[in-house]
Amino acid sequence: MRKISILGSTGSIGVQSLAVLRGLKDYQVTALAAGRNIDLLLKQIAEFRPQIVSVARASDAEKIKKEFADIEVYSGAEGLSRAAAADSDTVLAAVVGTDCILPIVEAIKLRKNIALANKEILAAAGEIIMPLVEKYGVKLLPVDSEHSAIMQACPPSIAPNGHFVYPVQQINKLILTASGGAFRDIPIAELSNKKVADALKHPNWQMGAKVTIDSATLVNKGLEVIEAHWLFGLPYEQIEVLIHSQSVVHSLVEYRDGAMLAQLGMPDMHLPIQYALTYPDRLAMPSVPRLDLLEMKKLTFEPPDIKTFRGLALAYEAGHAGGTMPAVFNAANEEAIRLFCAEKIKFTEIPELIERAMQAHENKSMPALDDILFAADWARQFVLKGLN
Amino acid sequence: MRKISILGSTGSIGVQSLAVLRGLKDYQVTALAAGRNIDLLLKQIAEFRPQIVSVARASDAEKIKKEFADIEVYSGAEGLSRAAAADSDTVLAAVVGTDCILPIVEAIKLRKNIALANKEILAAAGEIIMPLVEKYGVKLLPVDSEHSAIMQACPPSIAPNGHFVYPVQQINKLILTASGGAFRDIPIAELSNKKVADALKHPNWQMGAKVTIDSATLVNKGLEVIEAHWLFGLPYEQIEVLIHSQSVVHSLVEYRDGAMLAQLGMPDMHLPIQYALTYPDRLAMPSVPRLDLLEMKKLTFEPPDIKTFRGLALAYEAGHAGGTMPAVFNAANEEAIRLFCAEKIKFTEIPELIERAMQAHENKSMPALDDILFAADWARQFVLKGLN
Repeated sequence: MRKISILGSTGSIGVQSLAVLRGLKDYQVTALAAGRNIDLLLKQIAEFRPQIVSVARASDAEKIKKEFADIEVYSGAEGLSRAAAADSDTVLAAVVGTDCILPIVEAIKLRKNIALANKEILAAAGEIIMPLVEKYGVKLLPVDSEHSAIMQACPPSIAPNGHFVYPVQQINKLILTASGGAFRDIPIAELSNKKVADALKHPNWQMGAKVTIDSATLVNKGLEVIEAHWLFGLPYEQIEVLIHSQSVVHSLVEYRDGAMLAQLGMPDMHLPIQYALTYPDRLAMPSVPRLDLLEMKKLTFEPPDIKTFRGLALAYEAGHAGGTMPAVFNAANEEAIRLFCAEKIKFTEIPELIERAMQAHENKSMPALDDILFAADWARQFVLKGLN
Repeated sequence: MRKISILGSTGSIGVQSLAVLRGLKDYQVTALAAGRNIDLLLKQIAEFRPQIVSVARASDAEKIKKEFADIEVYSGAEGLSRAAAADSDTVLAAVVGTDCILPIVEAIKLRKNIALANKEILAAAGEIIMPLVEKYGVKLLPVDSEHSAIMQACPPSIAPNGHFVYPVQQINKLILTASGGAFRDIPIAELSNKKVADALKHPNWQMGAKVTIDSATLVNKGLEVIEAHWLFGLPYEQIEVLIHSQSVVHSLVEYRDGAMLAQLGMPDMHLPIQYALTYPDRLAMPSVPRLDLLEMKKLTFEPPDIKTFRGLALAYEAGHAGGTMPAVFNAANEEAIRLFCAEKIKFTEIPELIERAMQAHENKSMPALDDILFAADWARQFVLKGLN
């Protein structure tokens, strides 16, 4: 019996993970952490009967306690940590943003494997997380389709204490593919008029709101570049991005002999979620549609337009700078997206605010976790102030 | 120091293998076997200084002995066996056709690993070869670009006695890609007028004459389907062929969860040759051009036209029938190609002669090696007689 703790159970990845777990034998959900979608969470609790539940607000926790007297219910930051520390082998990190950095650090110290659906944790705090992963010998299993693809295209060996070791010496470069997002064919002059509803129209993937808007700015791909840097241990010079409109080649690895390995499939997150949960096994997934190359007819590849979509170029800059800069890049983006969703800024101001925050930030190298969290808070305040 | 014996050193694969070995440290060529291209062989002997040399004709052997008194020189069938049994870790089988079935069987019994560039051995005698590979615990390393691609896309584990074990339970199907050969866009009515020179104009690959003509008939892809069946241990229902005109996706594996892994690269045999010789290491190949997906712009996939190019359909029929039928398919094709190259039959008569031989053959199931060799001889005679 494998025990899974799910942080972010009512979000897009959380819901799909529970759908995957419904089809797996010998898996038990021991903790569910959600935000404010209590109606859905109550249904999930009734079906999966976890031992621990966490929600954002104390009042919601009280409501749940009344319905499920035998379950431990917590709230807020403490609740997320309790859910991460629950009796489980694997913690699925599917909470958007940086809120679960501390809970994940605690889970790693408890030697739990991490199925990582959240990009912001490594983007902001990879420099802290990766040494802990190595020290405590836990497996960091990517759930993002791109990173799952790379893991499948260069299968890691397992270190004596349990963590993954990728064949970096044999790799020439990683190529992350990008759909290009909702605005991939829109000229730069028209971008500033785009509204939230436009940005949420992703051509290929059904995803949560934040990642869909990040796809439209290419910040999402930038976060993935930084994530790939930490997950696979390669310098940024060896990580490239190609626009691939069909979203069926999920990423590629070029080896030093020139051979490339690519992972392909329909754009459907159930597949990488299941692979992360059942690794090293691959189990049949009859419900997931198969990629038919004859139906696709052709696969295309184009360079990303980094002048129009500055988000990607800024991510490389932040990654190269290292230290607290990636956390600033990420936090400024999080705050700018909040402002865009509240219709306080234009779409094109998202990368502008990120860039101004990065220019104003005094980078700190070799940061401690507190430095990273402090820099992220600073960036959020900077973006808010810049607005006034 | 790894010791390599090369059967077929003056052919296309042999020459490219020596080019690869020229760039590798700690590799020694201990035997060279060639046919009648003595000028080239003499240069290869002078450069690589093997212990054993074999040629087709006794008179050529005498000529070589005079120039290299310190080298053992043999000829004919015995020579090929001597070269295969030389002091080596790996025998590269790059002789076209079925002539080296017996030498390869002997090499396997001497527990030498086999780098297999020849398709006909497994196509004709897979039922004999594979149990020996397992019994003697040798590694059978594919050199064909398609089978090398599949090996890379589903890396085998190593059995306790040393042979490869592929994760067949996790695989849904193998997809072999095919360029379509020289006549891929030619209507069936025009095919019968095609000459040898036309059939030798392969759109993407520089290869030997026999395999190039086999590409034009799709018999080559048929032989590869049978080879894949034996190499990877999957039934024919799980092996598909797609036409991929660009010849950069060298083949794909679809796993049972729907994930596909593809190996890509420029159409250049140096890469799969080196991978087979240096496995499990991947060494840099600065001289091999890199695949640039941006230059490719698009990759396309189409179904093969098995009505026009009957060779592929006949291969599946022969494979399904099993027994001595694949050997008949292969030998009838070898003989028909000889006749086509001698301008005694038309291009469209190649599959016709194969089909007639298969229809006339009394298939023998569970054949011994002698049965297979006998059936192949019968098929050659049948094709020759059919001509008169």
